[in-house]
Amino acid sequence: MGARETVEVTGHLMDSGILSRVLDDIREYGGDFVIEEFDVGHEAHDPSSARITVEAPDDESLQRLLMRLQTRGVNQLAHGDAAVATSEQDGVLPDGFYATTNLETRVRLGGRWYDVDHPEMDCGLVVEESASGDLGVRTVPMSDVTRGMRIVVGAAGIQVSVPSSAPSVEATSPFDADHGPERPQTVLVRQVADGMRQARAAGTRLLWVAGPGVVHAGGVPAMAALVRAGWVDVLFAGNAVAALDIETALYGTGHDSSSPPGHEHGHEHRVRAVNTIRKAGSIERAVRDGVLASGLMHALVTEGKRFVLVGSVRDDGPLPEVHTDIVEGQRAMRDEVRDLGYCLMMATQLYAVATASILPASVPLVCVDINPATVTRLADRGTGQGRGIVTDVGLFLEQLALELVADYRRG
Amino acid sequence: MGARETVEVTGHLMDSGILSRVLDDIREYGGDFVIEEFDVGHEAHDPSSARITVEAPDDESLQRLLMRLQTRGVNQLAHGDAAVATSEQDGVLPDGFYATTNLETRVRLGGRWYDVDHPEMDCGLVVEESASGDLGVRTVPMSDVTRGMRIVVGAAGIQVSVPSSAPSVEATSPFDADHGPERPQTVLVRQVADGMRQARAAGTRLLWVAGPGVVHAGGVPAMAALVRAGWVDVLFAGNAVAALDIETALYGTGHDSSSPPGHEHGHEHRVRAVNTIRKAGSIERAVRDGVLASGLMHALVTEGKRFVLVGSVRDDGPLPEVHTDIVEGQRAMRDEVRDLGYCLMMATQLYAVATASILPASVPLVCVDINPATVTRLADRGTGQGRGIVTDVGLFLEQLALELVADYRRG
Amino acid sequence: MGARETVEVTGHLMDSGILSRVLDDIREYGGDFVIEEFDVGHEAHDPSSARITVEAPDDESLQRLLMRLQTRGVNQLAHGDAAVATSEQDGVLPDGFYATTNLETRVRLGGRWYDVDHPEMDCGLVVEESASGDLGVRTVPMSDVTRGMRIVVGAAGIQVSVPSSAPSVEATSPFDADHGPERPQTVLVRQVADGMRQARAAGTRLLWVAGPGVVHAGGVPAMAALVRAGWVDVLFAGNAVAALDIETALYGTGHDSSSPPGHEHGHEHRVRAVNTIRKAGSIERAVRDGVLASGLMHALVTEGKRFVLVGSVRDDGPLPEVHTDIVEGQRAMRDEVRDLGYCLMMATQLYAVATASILPASVPLVCVDINPATVTRLADRGTGQGRGIVTDVGLFLEQLALELVADYRRG
Amino acid sequence: MGARETVEVTGHLMDSGILSRVLDDIREYGGDFVIEEFDVGHEAHDPSSARITVEAPDDESLQRLLMRLQTRGVNQLAHGDAAVATSEQDGVLPDGFYATTNLETRVRLGGRWYDVDHPEMDCGLVVEESASGDLGVRTVPMSDVTRGMRIVVGAAGIQVSVPSSAPSVEATSPFDADHGPERPQTVLVRQVADGMRQARAAGTRLLWVAGPGVVHAGGVPAMAALVRAGWVDVLFAGNAVAALDIETALYGTGHDSSSPPGHEHGHEHRVRAVNTIRKAGSIERAVRDGVLASGLMHALVTEGKRFVLVGSVRDDGPLPEVHTDIVEGQRAMRDEVRDLGYCLMMATQLYAVATASILPASVPLVCVDINPATVTRLADRGTGQGRGIVTDVGLFLEQLALELVADYRRG
Repeated sequence: MGARETVEVTGHLMDSGILSRVLDDIREYGGDFVIEEFDVGHEAHDPSSARITVEAPDDESLQRLLMRLQTRGVNQLAHGDAAVATSEQDGVLPDGFYATTNLETRVRLGGRWYDVDHPEMDCGLVVEESASGDLGVRTVPMSDVTRGMRIVVGAAGIQVSVPSSAPSVEATSPFDADHGPERPQTVLVRQVADGMRQARAAGTRLLWVAGPGVVHAGGVPAMAALVRAGWVDVLFAGNAVAALDIETALYGTGHDSSSPPGHEHGHEHRVRAVNTIRKAGSIERAVRDGVLASGLMHALVTEGKRFVLVGSVRDDGPLPEVHTDIVEGQRAMRDEVRDLGYCLMMATQLYAVATASILPASVPLVCVDINPATVTRLADRGTGQGRGIVTDVGLFLEQLALELVADYRRG
Repeated sequence: MGARETVEVTGHLMDSGILSRVLDDIREYGGDFVIEEFDVGHEAHDPSSARITVEAPDDESLQRLLMRLQTRGVNQLAHGDAAVATSEQDGVLPDGFYATTNLETRVRLGGRWYDVDHPEMDCGLVVEESASGDLGVRTVPMSDVTRGMRIVVGAAGIQVSVPSSAPSVEATSPFDADHGPERPQTVLVRQVADGMRQARAAGTRLLWVAGPGVVHAGGVPAMAALVRAGWVDVLFAGNAVAALDIETALYGTGHDSSSPPGHEHGHEHRVRAVNTIRKAGSIERAVRDGVLASGLMHALVTEGKRFVLVGSVRDDGPLPEVHTDIVEGQRAMRDEVRDLGYCLMMATQLYAVATASILPASVPLVCVDINPATVTRLADRGTGQGRGIVTDVGLFLEQLALELVADYRRG
Repeated sequence: MGARETVEVTGHLMDSGILSRVLDDIREYGGDFVIEEFDVGHEAHDPSSARITVEAPDDESLQRLLMRLQTRGVNQLAHGDAAVATSEQDGVLPDGFYATTNLETRVRLGGRWYDVDHPEMDCGLVVEESASGDLGVRTVPMSDVTRGMRIVVGAAGIQVSVPSSAPSVEATSPFDADHGPERPQTVLVRQVADGMRQARAAGTRLLWVAGPGVVHAGGVPAMAALVRAGWVDVLFAGNAVAALDIETALYGTGHDSSSPPGHEHGHEHRVRAVNTIRKAGSIERAVRDGVLASGLMHALVTEGKRFVLVGSVRDDGPLPEVHTDIVEGQRAMRDEVRDLGYCLMMATQLYAVATASILPASVPLVCVDINPATVTRLADRGTGQGRGIVTDVGLFLEQLALELVADYRRG
Repeated sequence: MGARETVEVTGHLMDSGILSRVLDDIREYGGDFVIEEFDVGHEAHDPSSARITVEAPDDESLQRLLMRLQTRGVNQLAHGDAAVATSEQDGVLPDGFYATTNLETRVRLGGRWYDVDHPEMDCGLVVEESASGDLGVRTVPMSDVTRGMRIVVGAAGIQVSVPSSAPSVEATSPFDADHGPERPQTVLVRQVADGMRQARAAGTRLLWVAGPGVVHAGGVPAMAALVRAGWVDVLFAGNAVAALDIETALYGTGHDSSSPPGHEHGHEHRVRAVNTIRKAGSIERAVRDGVLASGLMHALVTEGKRFVLVGSVRDDGPLPEVHTDIVEGQRAMRDEVRDLGYCLMMATQLYAVATASILPASVPLVCVDINPATVTRLADRGTGQGRGIVTDVGLFLEQLALELVADYRRG
């Protein structure tokens, strides 16, 4: 073996399983290790720390392994400066670019540490000089790279911090999928309500991400009530959620009360609903013009809340507000993830994964789905700060509205 | 082809899909058919009727095909007497025995029709003469056959009737698994509550069948409240439900309110809980002695409700009331299925299938599970009168208690 | 009720369940019906036909119900001309537009019937006049509508034909999801192989649609062998499949044979792989330049086969060939669906639904996924010609290659 | 806090996640801890060891916590003798009984250590004196306890050893459910084949546990070939597997090759098949008499292999060899688990869990199912030595037969 580097990691190493995953990573990259030092706290909640020398077959492998380890909060001991290279093509990062984590990150340049604004995973780090000569470092997604940007390469001179969450049950078992539900569902609902109350109390914003299952499972009345009561600041979704919600609002509310709202009347209604909104010009104008008078999208528009709809290949229409270019859509989502204090994802794998990958690790994230695979797959993405709940989205929303909305269904 | 017989069927043939399944059956058994007559009602809700001549390669195949068709409510036109053979071994039905359906059935003997008491599927029909010389026909499971019993063979002389349910949406789409929930969950809860209210109003009994998921999902408080409010007359379950419920009652209620009831503390608690009840002699005595003071089994005992626990190969212990012999257990279940007006099955495939197979088709049957496969598999069993709901059992029970139990969680 | 119309339908009405679904549709749209005439074939395989008068509350409802019924192959008896309206906005169909099915369709204009070229569902029908004054009718998706186009409105003057498939088991049980697999998997593999051989023999093209599960499950070697043996003409997929395949090709093939190909080395590899291809300019150039030397995309490029990659909101990069605009992506897919004889969809719900919605009903379509929900949801889309197989994609591909590729794994 | 005890644990503590689970256990039982000493190996594969002082609210809690920790291989430092109490009732263990793990266990009595023969989890330990005055210790299930037995109580004087498995990927990630298959399926098949070859080479026996899915998925021809080639020594199953296999053998194999074996012809066939075997007296006699001439049960009988069938509440019949008493069935299973070298569980949760709970931890155990929940739930049982594979059972068996049976499907 050729290349080696000494790294350190601090935290609840053993009971969080971090160390186990670090050693797995080293093996996966074909590396080896020697544990130089291991300080384990004596009392139950003491943090422990380890210093490990990592080896890899060659320097390129080592650099990539070191970046990988940073996703676990493992930093290099040596504090040299970060290396920087210039991008030579639009949309292409330089070879050996530092691939970011979603952890709080700082970069050493000219002997000084610079905080990275709004960390996001799987990006590059661009170093910029302001007009006044100040240096700054920010994340840049591959598609936003332009020729001549100065990009950090290699893993040297970079430090990340794992969020020091309060030692709660949740914090110690991140993204434990709760397969075959083993935790009383009503307790889980209350925990989510509490998390949202805390985020609200802290003055942060609440992001929801929703899939069509929310409409199918009859969750629209509860979710619209939550919007009106101020528990949704911004919604990320696809064309299908909005189209299905609008279809129900336009065609699903016959006088026959036995016909449940949200019941699908065949696909023809959907296409016609989308056409109606396109004719009005936008969802917002359809609401203003009285064409669209109920449902989730109606609640968001009348309450002045934000929504970002991003298209997918299966879309009909799509609706006017939908970003048909997915790179543009990702940019629109990034514009909305500032000042978030909570993120609730319901019945969508696609938009949940997309959102999880642009959120900083510090945002609490809960994924609710009736399909265990969705919850599990989100966990695989490495968003170690999330929590999965396998339950029925419709009844979950009903209970959440009972918790958070005064007089919901009691009036 | 050799053997043929003319059959007739009446009902909502087309919109219930019955005819389609009848023709599938004929093909499956290698038979052929000619539709002699087809009367279709003119108005939307008129019943239609068909007369079909069925052919099969030989008489044995024909007889078996005719029995199969009876599970769809198809009867022979010819009204001869039923044939009867004598069983020659305990526990063995005669060759060519008539395999029962769970439909209302009558048998013609000596030119007279006799109603079969309490139809049950996959049994034989035994003809008995009372002391006073009156004939009677009842179902007999294979394991209860004794040598010398007179058993109906072949399909002649037997007529079944499909329950003439009110033309509701549910009746026309039996066991529609609601995959990827497409019907608002709150509406489904209300429909179940209504069904139970109707059964109660009609003076019939309510049967529940439950699996361990009820306890895991935190459904015990809601279900115990439903027991106390009189919405459970009898429970069918296995050792695991009772053991897990008792484990929670004995070990799961610490003073730390953050520790949710029902949370599993490892398997050791379960074995110890079972041993405690075995020491007390029975669940009932454990309740009387104050050893068991809360939970679902406690509620059943204190309210004087019935329960039948039947063992399975994975059981620990098992608990004293558990029938370790499964044939005895089936008999105990049969003893409880009289006068039923509703059956609700939650989070169990094994006990749901076992129960469905001994219920007459006239009992409304709802199966609730978070796993679509459970619901689907029950449908495959041919219990065409059931309804499946794919949802979270814990939240479902919570909502059902809010519907049915005055002041539940509002006190 | 006000509006009424007489319709007719011919085919294997009862055993295919079509009639049952037609009557369901009428109820769903709040309509009523009288069956005027019903001719049922006498022999087992005779087609039957029905003439039904349909009523709806008003003419708009009636027109929409009639369009809905056409998706079942139900046509109006009256043979007037189709009505046509002019679109007033780009991207918006006129009110009351005829929403297409994917069935063979003809339109009556000026007393003459015109075949619709390449039927596709959920589109409008545009009537165009060639330079020589000939009329033609083709489908137009909503997003391709331009102001001034002449679009068919209402359901009059339109006829559809359900494909008259050979009376096979498959044809009579369309999209039977085979939950909890009940049909020997090896038989299903052979049926797919036979379908592909027939399509090949008929000189038609084979379309594959794939999700990342194909790579995860280790299906790339088998699928690449099928590409090289000529069993794949065009592939529809997203960025993830290609990126994961390329990641495996670039980073997953170490010398350690115990490290299985396709094993995920963490997300960092994926981003780096995508960057490498972006640097090369395209997947095709990466193959030509020797940067990409194995895997599925490599096989497609070296064999000169087509692929259409369409982006989604979760994409990293994306790869250069990926259509980032989903409307453009849909157009690129439409360009490839001519002359298809078979479509095999594997491990993707998103791309399977997108593809199913642009294919004519005449193309045999098989959807393979380990998740029953994917297969079921595709069926819900109304693509009544498809077939679902719930199985392991990796082993399915392995068996399919053993069937179709001479000397596969036997060399 | 009152009671405390010092324990020690040695092994690959960090990368196996054991330590993390030990600390979770302590919290779960309301305890606290101080890590007295922690020796971490320096090199990658060095074992580490920890000495931890554990506290609990009272002695009873402490004893139970210590027993719980033993399931992780954690032993007490103090080496006093084990305490023993006398059982006072048949079928009831004394209060505070030591609940066994499935790990290699020894018990200290009179200053000497005694090995426990054949460890099994969730049992008691009975101390017996032979005629010659020698002491011996063996596991006793609760239902086999008789009055007067001398049973070990508390956790003192007991030591367990975790199997020192070869440091393979599998060993370090026990029961990693491979959700949404992420490891090439063909590699997994080969690993199972290798495991069976090693067990065979070591002269140990191969146990299979099967559910009805094996027959449904068309796995019988492959499994019967594996039986004939000597790769199955004993089968554990329920009535359903055997009944379905026999039904297929008796009724499912027409001359029409398009009718796949295993295709269900309705439940009537099953009941009739069971009756036929009951008439013959037993499966074995039905084979000898030529009544049953093909299939899995036929292969087992003709090859002289063992099978244990245990009943369940949903059984029809059941078949003569089925143990209708589940406690008797468990005993019959225990009699067959000696000298096992490999255990393969397919398509059954019930019998897999039942078997896992009576196997010593030293037997390699693989669970194959298309449903991720089955695999996950088995893992929850704490059988930390198992491995789960989410795949199609039918194709898995096909591939396994191709690996292990010379000339399978190549003749």
